[in-house]
Amino acid sequence: MANQLMPALEEDGGCEVVQIYNRSSGPAELLSKKLHKASFTSTISEIDKDADIYFLAISDDAIPFVADQLMSTIPLDAIGVHCSGSLDLNVLPFERKAGFYPLQSFSPNHEVSWRWIPLIITAPDEDTWLALDEIAGRLSSSVYRMTDEQKSVLHIAAVFANNFSNHMLTLAESICTEQNLPFEILKPLILETFSKAIVSGPRESQTGPAVRGDQKTIEKHLKLLEERPQLANIYKVITKSIIEN
Amino acid sequence: MANQLMPALEEDGGCEVVQIYNRSSGPAELLSKKLHKASFTSTISEIDKDADIYFLAISDDAIPFVADQLMSTIPLDAIGVHCSGSLDLNVLPFERKAGFYPLQSFSPNHEVSWRWIPLIITAPDEDTWLALDEIAGRLSSSVYRMTDEQKSVLHIAAVFANNFSNHMLTLAESICTEQNLPFEILKPLILETFSKAIVSGPRESQTGPAVRGDQKTIEKHLKLLEERPQLANIYKVITKSIIEN
Repeated sequence: MANQLMPALEEDGGCEVVQIYNRSSGPAELLSKKLHKASFTSTISEIDKDADIYFLAISDDAIPFVADQLMSTIPLDAIGVHCSGSLDLNVLPFERKAGFYPLQSFSPNHEVSWRWIPLIITAPDEDTWLALDEIAGRLSSSVYRMTDEQKSVLHIAAVFANNFSNHMLTLAESICTEQNLPFEILKPLILETFSKAIVSGPRESQTGPAVRGDQKTIEKHLKLLEERPQLANIYKVITKSIIEN
Repeated sequence: MANQLMPALEEDGGCEVVQIYNRSSGPAELLSKKLHKASFTSTISEIDKDADIYFLAISDDAIPFVADQLMSTIPLDAIGVHCSGSLDLNVLPFERKAGFYPLQSFSPNHEVSWRWIPLIITAPDEDTWLALDEIAGRLSSSVYRMTDEQKSVLHIAAVFANNFSNHMLTLAESICTEQNLPFEILKPLILETFSKAIVSGPRESQTGPAVRGDQKTIEKHLKLLEERPQLANIYKVITKSIIEN
């Protein structure tokens, strides 16, 4: 995420990125080269002491550790920001702190357009909120201020919408593979499913045996899944949920 | 589906649709008007007796009943075809029979492009297969001949890929709604999820706490879901499946 956020902060966010820190100097140097005049370092004690905002765009596990080390280095009135979707603000020891969470799934080879990424800002005080909102508003057209708890619940929703729906596709793929069917065969259906969910809403576009109450087909499917008890269990649990929702 | 299949059979399938039957004459007339010179009827005994192929593009429940009635009306060497994804061929009493199952989800207000719809043909004898394959090949660039059992397993895969993944979006929407968050906030993530799954494959593009083995986040989410035991159960079951897959 850092690799896409830092250039965006310079290009559209109105920020001057002064330095990139990474525990390995290779990636730090690589990213600094994408920026106007950012230096780079892999030594925490060499981190620049004059910045206004410090972004911790690093893995959740590393945040408390790096934040504690940073605490003794950076100015008291600087804002320490983490970019985690699941961590609360209390993991940050700074006087002024905020969360800056882009609700998107990032991958190295695919550049995303920041304009459409919802940015979730958590900030306990008004000054900090205003500073982050100014930057976020230049990057994206949808900026939300939330409490830690609201953000956590949103993160759960994102797990369902992204991770769990994707896993359903993985299971579908594995069923096809077992039958020597190409996953390609499901792609037109998948495309239709998601464009309908986006356009008409998922509840309205639900189809299939469960929502039709088609017990005959459900029982037939469960019989065919008899030798794959874990898959059969998922089938039962989700079918029940569709019927009850 | 009949409303989209019949015009396609005429336009691209090289067929002449001679008649539309529906138990209500309104819909039968409406569809016949979209065709070159098809008559319409709502009386089974008035069904045309000279056609080569009879398509039963009707609900699964109605297929055995209508097929039995049709049996005494149509020529012995005509092909009786159902369009169900879940019914086997043995529900059809005809001498020559086939399944013609478009693997797509149809809705009244959205025209689909037949070129990209996988057509699954089940046909016990070669003559029938050739007749159906000729038509199917004119409509779509992906035609598959399968046994009843292969088709049933494919249907299960489609339930996971379409119905179950869509239900994950419905649950995500309901979590948002409870927190007064608009479903809009998840749409960029959903679009990214499915384009990645299509391009790179779902297994390769799986992200989230489960695949990372991030127990802290999983436990935090389960705690937040404590008051929604059914949702918590789905969370547990799918998380377990992601970890084990």
